[in-house]
Amino acid sequence: MEIRNIGFIGTGIMGAAMAGHLMDAGFRLSVYNRTKSKAEGLLAKGAVWCDSPGACAKGQDVVITIVGYPKDVEEVYLGKDGILANVPAGTYVVDMTTSSPILAEKIFAAAKEKGVHAVDAPVTGGDVGAKNATLSILVGGEAEDFAALQPVFAAMGKNIVHMGSAGAGQKAKACNQIAIAGALAGACEAYAYAKASGLDVEKTYQAISAGAASSFQMNNVVRRGLSGDFAPGFMLKHFGKDLAIGTETSAAYGAALPVLAQVLSEVRQMERLQEGDKGTQALLHYYGLE
Amino acid sequence: MEIRNIGFIGTGIMGAAMAGHLMDAGFRLSVYNRTKSKAEGLLAKGAVWCDSPGACAKGQDVVITIVGYPKDVEEVYLGKDGILANVPAGTYVVDMTTSSPILAEKIFAAAKEKGVHAVDAPVTGGDVGAKNATLSILVGGEAEDFAALQPVFAAMGKNIVHMGSAGAGQKAKACNQIAIAGALAGACEAYAYAKASGLDVEKTYQAISAGAASSFQMNNVVRRGLSGDFAPGFMLKHFGKDLAIGTETSAAYGAALPVLAQVLSEVRQMERLQEGDKGTQALLHYYGLE
Repeated sequence: MEIRNIGFIGTGIMGAAMAGHLMDAGFRLSVYNRTKSKAEGLLAKGAVWCDSPGACAKGQDVVITIVGYPKDVEEVYLGKDGILANVPAGTYVVDMTTSSPILAEKIFAAAKEKGVHAVDAPVTGGDVGAKNATLSILVGGEAEDFAALQPVFAAMGKNIVHMGSAGAGQKAKACNQIAIAGALAGACEAYAYAKASGLDVEKTYQAISAGAASSFQMNNVVRRGLSGDFAPGFMLKHFGKDLAIGTETSAAYGAALPVLAQVLSEVRQMERLQEGDKGTQALLHYYGLE
Repeated sequence: MEIRNIGFIGTGIMGAAMAGHLMDAGFRLSVYNRTKSKAEGLLAKGAVWCDSPGACAKGQDVVITIVGYPKDVEEVYLGKDGILANVPAGTYVVDMTTSSPILAEKIFAAAKEKGVHAVDAPVTGGDVGAKNATLSILVGGEAEDFAALQPVFAAMGKNIVHMGSAGAGQKAKACNQIAIAGALAGACEAYAYAKASGLDVEKTYQAISAGAASSFQMNNVVRRGLSGDFAPGFMLKHFGKDLAIGTETSAAYGAALPVLAQVLSEVRQMERLQEGDKGTQALLHYYGLE
């Protein structure tokens, strides 16, 4: 089957950039978003507006979703006028939201009953990766479906990995966020120690950022915070969502992850303090660094 | 003053390599170690054996120590037959042990009273750095003493940084270990999630190790553990010592570092389970990965 028509649900910062690349690659796009204004760039480019997720899914070869929270994913797929109620057997449905692997398995099972091909395909690489089509795409689902969707994925990302069966993409994304949580908090605590003990923070960065303590989080994300830049590359509140998914599902899988639990509680505290829209480097504020 | 004679106390794996480089650079070395056999290579090379720290310190231009725990440092410097009881004004004393910044300040003050120049200069870069003379040396103390000791430091390391006044070298080393603690635990928890959720651990590594989750700890240390290699680059029990220093002194400085506290408790647990002599990647065992 040649893929020509794509329904794209969720045109936020990530989704709008990704949908734009699909249009550039020649796919015909229909789009839906809760806030229509965020789809305007795509509509101006020729995308067709739809008034509901169900309407956007109808008649497409592939339906792609990248929405907010797992509850949004569940509603959009399994709700009364949702995707699965509106697509025929043979359709591909691809959730690129960072969501729960357990929910991804549930959607896969419901889709399979109708002959619909469901795949979970969360991404890493952030808004920069979305803009430059250099995202990593972590895919869970059937190998044949992964193969069939290659042209779609290739338009949006670079490192496209089939992690395993349904849910495996979401599991890999959770691993990614869990490793980030530890590295981010470790870097913040290092600078909290530096500041409390009276060290020069910049000198400390120069001394420790090249060796065994180095991490992308320290050398890029936290680095920005130390220079007073708290603009979001990735918002704390979205990180909180991801860590909550990791915490809940790790409990279901029988893994106790105390550092993850600790960092989630810190992020939640910063959300309560109205810092959720800042970048993850604002975790420095939890530790008293300005 | 030209530095010619160096007393070197502590010829373990790190110390023996560092002392060897000093001899290669032309300094005349006297050595002491609790276990004499560990100094044999240096003695064969022409170093002079001394029967006590005090005897090793006597008559030297510079005395270097790299021993075990803060209590050993305190004993060697401030004990009845210790270094400060045996050196005249004008001597340089350099503690390269990873030790407490508060103790470093105490030694500095006691030394200053006698006109002795005390410097704290812990290192990063591990046994490989010691062997190849590529250590980073983090120095706390007077700027003139830092300058006077350049030829000595240059024989042992590459990245030689004056962090600030007495104790500042130890503070920077603590920051380094604190950042490592978070990154190490984050990577271990990521793989614990991968395993518990049924992901292929190797595929997970390939998917997440190049992006925002990447760290030296994940890509080097934990990586070795995942391939079944738990030989020590840096022993868990030494890491436990360092994290205990960070925990105690951060409390004294008024910084609450919950991730550090958590990782220290995990390392202590692994020491109780007789894993202290393994490399830090054995923290994977805490999380049930073999």
